[in-house]
Amino acid sequence: MENTTQIEPAQNQAFLSSQQLLDHWQAHRRLTRRLIEAFPADQFFTYSLGGMRPCSELIAEILGMTGAGMEGVRSGRWDAFQTMDASSKDEVLAQWDQVTAQIDTIWPQIPTSRYQEVDLAFGLYEGTMYWFILYLIDNEIHHRAQAYVYLRTLGIEPPAFWDRS
Amino acid sequence: MENTTQIEPAQNQAFLSSQQLLDHWQAHRRLTRRLIEAFPADQFFTYSLGGMRPCSELIAEILGMTGAGMEGVRSGRWDAFQTMDASSKDEVLAQWDQVTAQIDTIWPQIPTSRYQEVDLAFGLYEGTMYWFILYLIDNEIHHRAQAYVYLRTLGIEPPAFWDRS
Repeated sequence: MENTTQIEPAQNQAFLSSQQLLDHWQAHRRLTRRLIEAFPADQFFTYSLGGMRPCSELIAEILGMTGAGMEGVRSGRWDAFQTMDASSKDEVLAQWDQVTAQIDTIWPQIPTSRYQEVDLAFGLYEGTMYWFILYLIDNEIHHRAQAYVYLRTLGIEPPAFWDRS
Repeated sequence: MENTTQIEPAQNQAFLSSQQLLDHWQAHRRLTRRLIEAFPADQFFTYSLGGMRPCSELIAEILGMTGAGMEGVRSGRWDAFQTMDASSKDEVLAQWDQVTAQIDTIWPQIPTSRYQEVDLAFGLYEGTMYWFILYLIDNEIHHRAQAYVYLRTLGIEPPAFWDRS
């Protein structure tokens, strides 16, 4: 009798594990933290280009969406974005570290089946939870890169993109 | 007798499938294509901020690294970055579409086991192949976001980040 085991097409097999994606994200977060550290304190809340938001507001969006978003992924409860309450870079970095720890705490509590579930993130954005988590990561890369340009125009060399140590 | 089946920790289970990651990337590539279309033709090869490369060179890096990189992922043969040979936006867009098709062709030829293999990408960057593919995607998001700032300072509204249609 021939072996009739169904072979799953390669396209439907895992690209990476949940733990690997977490590690990838936290590596990006280390780079974003380094960007905040490199930004001049006296420009962090004010400097902008082309009418865009200053670095502080770009980081505030990342922080607020990530904290509340990960809670939504875990529990299906979507609270409003958390607001960043900080008037210095040190306070921003402290909140950054809190959200980093929050991600590490929440991640193992997310059932694997949840990644493929469709939910209405923040009551607004419908999609699978893996899509939403990728959105959080991509949005961080996108806004951080804009702050790279701010730094360059301020004459400051940004942290190396490839270095996630 | 108790059921002693080993339950794999959630952290080691799949975050998303290979096909889902491909779809995610191609959605990003549609946005990058729209960014190229939105960039003024007379500024595409020249305009820059802070001593950075013009939009044409940011896109050339994405194109060259992606084309040669995907061939390396498939075959383990790492040729030099492909260079972009284009003197107009239309030529850039034509090369963009070639690489889009190349990714779609190569993707199903990559054995699933390859994602977890370690290789020396371009003879320089050691890592797993899933890490390298994520690097290609992240690098595209990073450079595209910098071109967003160029557009803003040129007084042009960039394509919406969330729209990947």
